[in-house]
Amino acid sequence: MTNRIHNFNAGPAALPLPVLEEIRDEFLDYKDSGMSVIELSHRSKWFDDIINKAIERAKRLLNLDDRYHVLFIQGGASQQFCMIPMNLAVDGKSADYLNTGTWSTKAIQEARIQGKEVRIIASSEDKDFSYIPKGFQTNSDASYLHFTSNNTIKGTQWSEFPQAGDVPLVSDMSSDILCRSFDIKPFGMIYAGAQKNIGPSGSAMVIIRDDMLERTPESLPSMLKYTTFADKNSMYNTPSCFTIYTISLILKWIEETIGGLDAMERINREKAGILYDFIDNSDFYAGTAAKDSRSLMNITFRLPNEDLEKRLVKKAGENGFGGLKGHRSVGGCRASTYNATTIESVQALVEFMAEFEKSEG
Amino acid sequence: MTNRIHNFNAGPAALPLPVLEEIRDEFLDYKDSGMSVIELSHRSKWFDDIINKAIERAKRLLNLDDRYHVLFIQGGASQQFCMIPMNLAVDGKSADYLNTGTWSTKAIQEARIQGKEVRIIASSEDKDFSYIPKGFQTNSDASYLHFTSNNTIKGTQWSEFPQAGDVPLVSDMSSDILCRSFDIKPFGMIYAGAQKNIGPSGSAMVIIRDDMLERTPESLPSMLKYTTFADKNSMYNTPSCFTIYTISLILKWIEETIGGLDAMERINREKAGILYDFIDNSDFYAGTAAKDSRSLMNITFRLPNEDLEKRLVKKAGENGFGGLKGHRSVGGCRASTYNATTIESVQALVEFMAEFEKSEG
Repeated sequence: MTNRIHNFNAGPAALPLPVLEEIRDEFLDYKDSGMSVIELSHRSKWFDDIINKAIERAKRLLNLDDRYHVLFIQGGASQQFCMIPMNLAVDGKSADYLNTGTWSTKAIQEARIQGKEVRIIASSEDKDFSYIPKGFQTNSDASYLHFTSNNTIKGTQWSEFPQAGDVPLVSDMSSDILCRSFDIKPFGMIYAGAQKNIGPSGSAMVIIRDDMLERTPESLPSMLKYTTFADKNSMYNTPSCFTIYTISLILKWIEETIGGLDAMERINREKAGILYDFIDNSDFYAGTAAKDSRSLMNITFRLPNEDLEKRLVKKAGENGFGGLKGHRSVGGCRASTYNATTIESVQALVEFMAEFEKSEG
Repeated sequence: MTNRIHNFNAGPAALPLPVLEEIRDEFLDYKDSGMSVIELSHRSKWFDDIINKAIERAKRLLNLDDRYHVLFIQGGASQQFCMIPMNLAVDGKSADYLNTGTWSTKAIQEARIQGKEVRIIASSEDKDFSYIPKGFQTNSDASYLHFTSNNTIKGTQWSEFPQAGDVPLVSDMSSDILCRSFDIKPFGMIYAGAQKNIGPSGSAMVIIRDDMLERTPESLPSMLKYTTFADKNSMYNTPSCFTIYTISLILKWIEETIGGLDAMERINREKAGILYDFIDNSDFYAGTAAKDSRSLMNITFRLPNEDLEKRLVKKAGENGFGGLKGHRSVGGCRASTYNATTIESVQALVEFMAEFEKSEG
């Protein structure tokens, strides 16, 4: 075996070792095609099978009924920030947003750039986005209500989703898609850049309901219309084939090796629990997110001072732990524990952090 | 060794075997990082090195001076069809296009969708796009003059580029970028979906000159502005990392193994020459492109009837040759001979075609 580190990257992030091994083993000859998977035509029977299996698995895992379409669109979540208001904001109706951090803020900016009428329904900016808002009123006359289900930078996550009656929810689930099961029914659309929980970078997975597709204005550029992707099974032009291939293998791993989303959620809760328990029982480490808003995916914490934080990150690197530096915009430390991060890696990290406290605290 | 076919796919297409082997060999542990290349943060020193080396190599291979920026933008050439008029068509000046086939036509449509004033300067539609127009007049008052340097579907290629004086040329080089050397000076921008000559799908490479960047309207969505990508070294958000990594390795292969663009061009001319000579000396096979407009990259030909064409493609498949079916919109046969296709593969194909003629002709 190779010398693999404990990878706590925020994204691109750790991927399941068995999936990486499968990619490596078939890399020169995909299923007796005589070609690498990256040399296959996207119009071939092999790639058809790859993309269709990825879609079927996503539909099974998320319990999607026939009204939902699974699309693959390049440009990550940031391109979705622009496509959502362009396609889904209905004339004369406002586009409503919940603001829980950097990515929500960017989604809001992109709607405003397009001159859409944007309403901020609730925000946690008053406390530096360290919590998830509660008790706010939503509007029944909005085009949609947009929220970011997990906030990678601040380490917060919606444990229960906002309720907006008949107004469709639209959610950026880039950093927690397929970490747990949930009821899709209130959602008009969810989307996720692949590079955290479900694959490498290079594609967003977009799940969109029939009635939302009907909103797409005919006049948009082809590559910015959801209908272009829905009508052509995401192959109006060449998609990001390797990304979709890897997503397909990871969905298979979640379904067949892990045992589905309930099992995935149990593992994710166990991992986060180990870290939060350790932090809560320490006077040296302090979590930064409000306890009732804590993320299962990104565990953010501080040490008594910045110098110690730098030393922790450095020493961790020397001891085989990667990705523990907080986002450059906020500092501190962060351990991202996406689907592919193992319980063993989290246990090893906690042991290392205890050692570090003993020697430096 | 594995059972690799002779791959004549039109894209995604054959890639150099040594590059595929390098990817496989370091797939679980990229340069002692302890991570797969698809698990690296795009903000890491490893990925910085990958993207910067790709840019430096592209600049050396194409002799780009400091005014040119090399960007990586997701969405393929089709997204560029929309971004070009959005960013580069100046108010009050027309956007001029040369129409040489399906992809040019799409580029024109996307400019028209945006309500830009589009002029078609020349077209080969009268003869089913089987030739490259000559002797046309360009306008000195245009925003840009756009052309498709190689037409994958019809098998034609500009052997000498159009001249438009001070009007910047903008070219879709998706299917022939880095197949030969050329003078970059008349070009304001060139772009290429990676999945033919320089890598797997998932990113376009965009080369754009300083003065073109100044045209970007401030009011555009962030992900649709060239300035967003130029200002952030293509990392405003997470780029398609695996695609850029593979591009970087392929540019290295062109530079160090092949010996640069002049050597690459000699090999490409030799490959195309073998196939065209064979076709021209046969009464059974007939090239479809005008001789003075023939592509080095996509060699299109017909057999005496469609039934024979189907049998050729089928028998070729059984004998280890892939990708010989013409584009679904035109039928016939096509052998794509991009950079990574070897002379040996082309020789083997010609032998197979001669055998086929003997047994079926």
